[in-house]
Amino acid sequence: MPNDFTTISVDAMGGDHAPAVVLEGVRTALEADHGLRVLLVGPEEIIGRVVHGRCTPVPAREVISMGEHPASAVRAKRDSSIVVGCRLVKDGEAAGFFSAGSTGACMAAATLVMGRIHGVDRPAIAAVIPGAERPVVLLDVGANADVKPAMLVQFAFMGRAYAQVVLDVDEPSIGLLNIGEEPTKGSQLAQEAHTLMRASVPGFVGNVEGRDVPKGTVDVVVTDGFTGNVVLKTLEGLASVLFSQIKGALTESMTTKVGSLMIATSLKGLKSRLDPEAYGGAPLLGVDGECVIGHGSSSAQAVANGIAVTARAARGDLALRIRQAIAGDASTSRDVTPPGT
Amino acid sequence: MPNDFTTISVDAMGGDHAPAVVLEGVRTALEADHGLRVLLVGPEEIIGRVVHGRCTPVPAREVISMGEHPASAVRAKRDSSIVVGCRLVKDGEAAGFFSAGSTGACMAAATLVMGRIHGVDRPAIAAVIPGAERPVVLLDVGANADVKPAMLVQFAFMGRAYAQVVLDVDEPSIGLLNIGEEPTKGSQLAQEAHTLMRASVPGFVGNVEGRDVPKGTVDVVVTDGFTGNVVLKTLEGLASVLFSQIKGALTESMTTKVGSLMIATSLKGLKSRLDPEAYGGAPLLGVDGECVIGHGSSSAQAVANGIAVTARAARGDLALRIRQAIAGDASTSRDVTPPGT
Repeated sequence: MPNDFTTISVDAMGGDHAPAVVLEGVRTALEADHGLRVLLVGPEEIIGRVVHGRCTPVPAREVISMGEHPASAVRAKRDSSIVVGCRLVKDGEAAGFFSAGSTGACMAAATLVMGRIHGVDRPAIAAVIPGAERPVVLLDVGANADVKPAMLVQFAFMGRAYAQVVLDVDEPSIGLLNIGEEPTKGSQLAQEAHTLMRASVPGFVGNVEGRDVPKGTVDVVVTDGFTGNVVLKTLEGLASVLFSQIKGALTESMTTKVGSLMIATSLKGLKSRLDPEAYGGAPLLGVDGECVIGHGSSSAQAVANGIAVTARAARGDLALRIRQAIAGDASTSRDVTPPGT
Repeated sequence: MPNDFTTISVDAMGGDHAPAVVLEGVRTALEADHGLRVLLVGPEEIIGRVVHGRCTPVPAREVISMGEHPASAVRAKRDSSIVVGCRLVKDGEAAGFFSAGSTGACMAAATLVMGRIHGVDRPAIAAVIPGAERPVVLLDVGANADVKPAMLVQFAFMGRAYAQVVLDVDEPSIGLLNIGEEPTKGSQLAQEAHTLMRASVPGFVGNVEGRDVPKGTVDVVVTDGFTGNVVLKTLEGLASVLFSQIKGALTESMTTKVGSLMIATSLKGLKSRLDPEAYGGAPLLGVDGECVIGHGSSSAQAVANGIAVTARAARGDLALRIRQAIAGDASTSRDVTPPGT
């Protein structure tokens, strides 16, 4: 076998429908990518079933469930699929880790085991939103509810690297989420971040507003983890409400029922274009290794997409790109709280 | 004429399509409500045209445009339609004021001329979001980008009064916008506000998340003006993107074109159910008089709806209800910055 395989460790126990959809997703991912190998991590009785020739089982006796306190669970369960999956990356046996399990536990494990990239104050979770004009990297979407202006600058550099490596955008445009276009608008945090970003972030276009996320007017939208999480869930909520109301409207009468059959295919195409699952999960940026976290409700195809995204990040040396970007940005060394606070 | 007419002052010059749509909107509102009178405020050559028998022109020579700095414009243009409209409320000649003009200028004028309700630290702007289960009063949506926990408690009381008076909900359920359901989740602001609200706000159900706004799981959603504004614009952006993409999908092929014609009526009904204009604009809560601000792009029907909402607030003594609610809540007297800071 050639030496240039990309190996990804996968949490067999992650997600509401694990392990079944994970096993199926791994198979799909391996069939789609002949340069991919998977280390499937989980209890022996589950990973023992042979999934694929390029899938190697790695035993982990424990499982961290969605309800557990992330940091405590990670410290207590050193032999859990999440911790072992991260350790394979740390030890160089895998180039990245994918899980559809607890976001908090993945974040805690990746930070503890892989470590933070030197100079990164706080890792951030990004989401790729299917905007009308282009996919938008939105970060942070929940790792840091309270941030300082300099952290937003780091988020910008991390989001930029992600758009370059995974979405293939050479020179990403970057906006700061705010409540007005003028630099003097918004919260004190946003105003200070605007000044810092203007001075140091390549491709910074200034403030953008809530509507720019679904419209996709920029490649990267930077915000704190509170606002980002609210935006993400608002979008998910409205999309789900609208699709169910459209379905309701379309089947309201016999006439529309006939019309509805005729356009069913078109609407399905639309729904899949807007489907966040197509982007395979949320990358955790700023840890020293690739880590992508899938939605708990991931389907097998979403798991396959998540594994593919993790492989793409690994092949593009995303963590290295982030390290170089953070090291190159002198401005982020100011006014950042010391690590560990 | 009977004595129990409700008189609303209306800014003839407010909005992108003023004065034409405003004049038409006033006419529509008066025809729909025989207990309504309007004081139409603007330059004499415009308000001179007779709109309706229950419409009285009130001259104001100046106009504040959308681009002007709100506070400076309000101080400089004492004879503007916005300032005069607010003064009619202060002087007791009108029971409420409606404008589709500059939100900032209306806020500045209402606060300066009508004054704040005693005990209210900061007025807030509310928006009524057409949620799937029920309309949701979301506040603040932009007046206060930086807030303290006790201000969120006041927003809760103001939003509750609005839901009772204008939306006819006897015992509104109230949620705090956060990034998780547990009280210990989220930003420091949200955690502290949760504790205060739990102790003092009737109908408080705890934290809600972004998806609860479009779903309409509670009657009132409380948040800071930064997050609220981002949510509002995210919803507007996604709704506009989805409707245009659905239109695109439906006309993609001949087959779907036929189908599309058949369901056009159903989709129009859906769009109007989701239309924020149906709720007539954003009330400014916490000033000592009713003030409702319409969207700059308001149609004549939206202006009519906005006037109707203002009249409804006036008839229900909304400002009085808010004054009583704030006076009754001892907890809001703690940790609030002094007025004027």
